[in-house]
Amino acid sequence: MKPTDKIKVKRASKRGFYDKETVYKILDNNFICQIAFVHKEYPVIIPTIYGRENDCIYIHGATVSRMLVELEKGFTISINVTQTDGIVMARSAFHHSLNYQSVTIFGKAELVTNEIERNNALKIISDQVIPDRWEEVRLPNEKELKATKIIKIPITEASAKIRKGPPVDDKPDYDLPIWAGVIPIKKMFEQPISDPDLKEGIPIPDSVNKLFKD
Amino acid sequence: MKPTDKIKVKRASKRGFYDKETVYKILDNNFICQIAFVHKEYPVIIPTIYGRENDCIYIHGATVSRMLVELEKGFTISINVTQTDGIVMARSAFHHSLNYQSVTIFGKAELVTNEIERNNALKIISDQVIPDRWEEVRLPNEKELKATKIIKIPITEASAKIRKGPPVDDKPDYDLPIWAGVIPIKKMFEQPISDPDLKEGIPIPDSVNKLFKD
Repeated sequence: MKPTDKIKVKRASKRGFYDKETVYKILDNNFICQIAFVHKEYPVIIPTIYGRENDCIYIHGATVSRMLVELEKGFTISINVTQTDGIVMARSAFHHSLNYQSVTIFGKAELVTNEIERNNALKIISDQVIPDRWEEVRLPNEKELKATKIIKIPITEASAKIRKGPPVDDKPDYDLPIWAGVIPIKKMFEQPISDPDLKEGIPIPDSVNKLFKD
Repeated sequence: MKPTDKIKVKRASKRGFYDKETVYKILDNNFICQIAFVHKEYPVIIPTIYGRENDCIYIHGATVSRMLVELEKGFTISINVTQTDGIVMARSAFHHSLNYQSVTIFGKAELVTNEIERNNALKIISDQVIPDRWEEVRLPNEKELKATKIIKIPITEASAKIRKGPPVDDKPDYDLPIWAGVIPIKKMFEQPISDPDLKEGIPIPDSVNKLFKD
């Protein structure tokens, strides 16, 4: 992708990446984004789940959702996905940092109206959160589909910003008797908690078991 | 806080909270926020670390940071902090959800110029990420302070949105032989990785040990 002025990483520019592979890998490793849009001249920021397929981000919500009503107007919006990988502890306060992987997208949202694309988008979003869950559940009925709005944002302007590795201190500070290093942060799934109203004899499904296989 | 029209939770309004205790608890449990501001009529969204003290959010960055230069102009900005607590798996695709705790703030940023407040803000931000680290490190020198800008955002308009607990399905779906429940998500610190350039004999400091004491 071309690093337009909008998405070019200005601060710490060596941390900026503009290739699809890097950007999509970060998007695919997460499922929550923050979306910002302008409403009455002030910015509104709303977290939501998303799914990516090819060069598009899909999000969904209630047909009456204020955010989706705003988004489908087609003004430029901004999306950010940030994954925190570690706390970087330097010898100096100044050089403390975070290890992270972040993607920022600028685009114009479009309302998805084609029923096949709408159904596919719902599966894409579901798969982004829990792969293969879609095959296990009671799929949306007509009433539910009517209550659901799907928006897509083509990924045309996007950049990734990544920091990884150990702290970088000023030369003289390396002699100080101060511990420095990285504390990795990991997002973990904990053991599933069955719905208290679950009928007896229903086993944990494959989609959930797969989440713990790594 | 008064739920003004800007911050009132419209969708799933029973998930909305406006009391300081709830809002500040979520803020204090996290250290990364997304900040949105309007630049040339489009929204820009940037993740950054923050610290809270009393009724203020502090953020910092390079003096030349494009975001901070925009923020100090004093236009209304929006801040979001979102913590994901679990994946809510229902019997129907439609009722899948997330357990989360999210705070949205609207406010006008102010440049902090008082040196005592600036120094205190840096400690507040540091404490938010790793309590007590400030006491262990080489503190900012004049050159570093000069290169650092501090912005504060008074928390005047804020709301929290929280979802917790098991899935809620449509009545007839409870008879389906489909597993339902919650998969908790936890953010964990992993064992510290010492800087490869760390001098021998420097132990892991108290601030780090305390992170693992829960």
